[in-house]
Amino acid sequence: MRMVDLIAKKRDGKELTTDEIRFFIEGYTAGDIPDYQVSALAMAIYFQDMTDRERADLTMAMVNSGDTIDLSAIEGIKVDKHSTGGVGDTTTLVLAPLVAALDIPVAKMSGRGLGHTGGTIDKLESIAGFHVEIDKDEFVHLVNTHKIAVIGQSGNLTPADKKLYALRDVTATVNSIPLIASSIMSKKIAAGSDAIVLDVKTGAGAFMKTVDDAKELAHAMVRIGNNVGRKTMAVISDMSQPLGAAIGNALEVREAIDTLRGQGPKDLEELCLALGSQMVYLAGKAGSLEEAEEKLREVMRNGQALEKFKAFIANQGGDASVVDHPERLPEARFKIELPAREDGVVAELVADEIGTAAMLLGAGRATKESEIDLAVGLVLNKKIGDPVREGESLITIHANREDIDDVKEKLYASIRISDQAEPPVLVHGIVTE
Amino acid sequence: MRMVDLIAKKRDGKELTTDEIRFFIEGYTAGDIPDYQVSALAMAIYFQDMTDRERADLTMAMVNSGDTIDLSAIEGIKVDKHSTGGVGDTTTLVLAPLVAALDIPVAKMSGRGLGHTGGTIDKLESIAGFHVEIDKDEFVHLVNTHKIAVIGQSGNLTPADKKLYALRDVTATVNSIPLIASSIMSKKIAAGSDAIVLDVKTGAGAFMKTVDDAKELAHAMVRIGNNVGRKTMAVISDMSQPLGAAIGNALEVREAIDTLRGQGPKDLEELCLALGSQMVYLAGKAGSLEEAEEKLREVMRNGQALEKFKAFIANQGGDASVVDHPERLPEARFKIELPAREDGVVAELVADEIGTAAMLLGAGRATKESEIDLAVGLVLNKKIGDPVREGESLITIHANREDIDDVKEKLYASIRISDQAEPPVLVHGIVTE
Repeated sequence: MRMVDLIAKKRDGKELTTDEIRFFIEGYTAGDIPDYQVSALAMAIYFQDMTDRERADLTMAMVNSGDTIDLSAIEGIKVDKHSTGGVGDTTTLVLAPLVAALDIPVAKMSGRGLGHTGGTIDKLESIAGFHVEIDKDEFVHLVNTHKIAVIGQSGNLTPADKKLYALRDVTATVNSIPLIASSIMSKKIAAGSDAIVLDVKTGAGAFMKTVDDAKELAHAMVRIGNNVGRKTMAVISDMSQPLGAAIGNALEVREAIDTLRGQGPKDLEELCLALGSQMVYLAGKAGSLEEAEEKLREVMRNGQALEKFKAFIANQGGDASVVDHPERLPEARFKIELPAREDGVVAELVADEIGTAAMLLGAGRATKESEIDLAVGLVLNKKIGDPVREGESLITIHANREDIDDVKEKLYASIRISDQAEPPVLVHGIVTE
Repeated sequence: MRMVDLIAKKRDGKELTTDEIRFFIEGYTAGDIPDYQVSALAMAIYFQDMTDRERADLTMAMVNSGDTIDLSAIEGIKVDKHSTGGVGDTTTLVLAPLVAALDIPVAKMSGRGLGHTGGTIDKLESIAGFHVEIDKDEFVHLVNTHKIAVIGQSGNLTPADKKLYALRDVTATVNSIPLIASSIMSKKIAAGSDAIVLDVKTGAGAFMKTVDDAKELAHAMVRIGNNVGRKTMAVISDMSQPLGAAIGNALEVREAIDTLRGQGPKDLEELCLALGSQMVYLAGKAGSLEEAEEKLREVMRNGQALEKFKAFIANQGGDASVVDHPERLPEARFKIELPAREDGVVAELVADEIGTAAMLLGAGRATKESEIDLAVGLVLNKKIGDPVREGESLITIHANREDIDDVKEKLYASIRISDQAEPPVLVHGIVTE
């Protein structure tokens, strides 16, 4: 088998066999196939696409290129949730205790990563004492007894995907549905869960700018999951503006607590219920998405979700009293309001620009070496469709520096006030096949 | 400027600027831009094509990546001829003295190369004493006084093209009109001629399998030449069967002598006149292609072309008596006939398969290290459309070994005899813009 023949085959619009895809991924991981052939193949895939069979094969070849996590010691159906990435996305902090409260095992492996805010681990570390340095056995024990635990990700998962992604990044082949879908799915599958719920974001702040593109990606990932034996569903959700109100680590923990109490931002609650329903349904704890949603609302109402969050925090060394006393979370020294400059209705809140403003405050990492300030961030007081008067606060800026003209400037540039505007639809659809 | 942005631009079907193309070629030649980005760009070009302006810019960027040859010391308009490659192509040996006989300077730089037979230099070296080891000054002097000389190619011409071609070869991006056209044209332009005549072959034995593909390539190259200030024309010629009758080094010299005398194979003569007419016209020695052809026929008839060939041979140390005594050329020990196995009409003579048979005899180089046997080769006694009787010789095999079953088998496999067949059209058209 010669790589050049595989490239020519794909270039001519033909389907690669399972063996050919395995040959390519194994050879590339081992360093036997050079970057210059792989980038040419990636570009050919960009133009010629891949069939469902090829996508599933590519995904599994990448899964098998490295370690996989064995969660079989954990009882029950493990359901993982993945978001394609947005701004102010507090769903994981809400969903983990919410779903665990229904006796569904939440065995979360998480990272820190780069972004507008920290990763899930960073956010949780804004709770005094909380840590993820637990060993594998304790992790399994915690999930089996309390249905919830978080551990830092370890192991050499999907090295082929890491290598391929780095190459795609410098060869203009990132933006290809089969390559994006197999990249995401290979990581989720290697992480060992039985079922997968996907939150595919769309809009100005998301990678997929249009609903159609987001749906195409969602269908691609759901089909891969189902074709390789992992039940998968997806929600298409809006990211034209940040989700919820808080953007920042401690601020999002506080928002998660409010939401578990039924007092969070309505859009965040709605999305958590949509995603959570799929998780409950796939875990086999409800016969329909409607029944699943009702069960979730029940544990929010009766306080079990909040209790689960407290137990989770305490189990990993954290100060669970923050749940009842959120003022014990780190607070920034300055709270500065951003006043509206005119009367009107908020018409635009460009999500990634607002995320960048949060990063300027220190809420996220621009590089791996950046230190995160867990206290800082933004709280949106107005969202798209809200009326506003001149002088009224659009955003509360939580800062540890007083001179924040750069942040204000960025924020004003990302907000548009108009005569009228409707709030965007939050959930654009669910994808089950 | 970032290479990844250039790849994305071309991927999206946009036109690269002159500066962007220069940046890419200069960076690649210098080693600053890695292979994996260039192969991705080449694949994007495969799918998205290039405009005439981009093609011209790419060609000139490759010309400027290395040395260029300065022929300004040679008087008159220097016209170079290039063939896209075929089997039994004796045109260069005929055209050089034919055109020089009309006082058009033929300053030929040639190589040896790989192929079914040797290159022009190998063929000429089958004449005892002939050599191309002359210095630049002598070369210029010979062309200025006798209008014809051949020298071995030297200098670092179009290194970008060499590097790019090697990469395309292993990334399935060879078969792209803008890349093929700019590759060929960059080499011809760097070699310093004022005008260029192209022989674009089509058919089973050629790179371009269909007339439409050949025409597309011809138009691409002619436009590049004209856009960068080198007058260029092309002939589309048939290569479904070998050109002329002889395939082999000394055998082709003999065939060239016959043709200069007006006694060569009619197809070879026809193509030499078509190509030669364009050379004469572009050199400004005739007002039309018809007038140019008449002048060429005249120097064939009156013996001036043959005299020019003699002078050319003698000038470079060769034994010019071979022109009148072709039996003084190297002869193979065995002449073995290949008899037809049935009555009928020759319907197929697969050119590249027949070329490979000649290479098996030793007429060409499979690798750079191969030694060529100048005496061996094939002479076709029948061509497509010729009737043949069982037992009649199809091909005379000139061999220096007696056991040639492998060659015979190859030849029989490449010949089809049928009830009826028409000779193929030789010249499918001329391209002037």
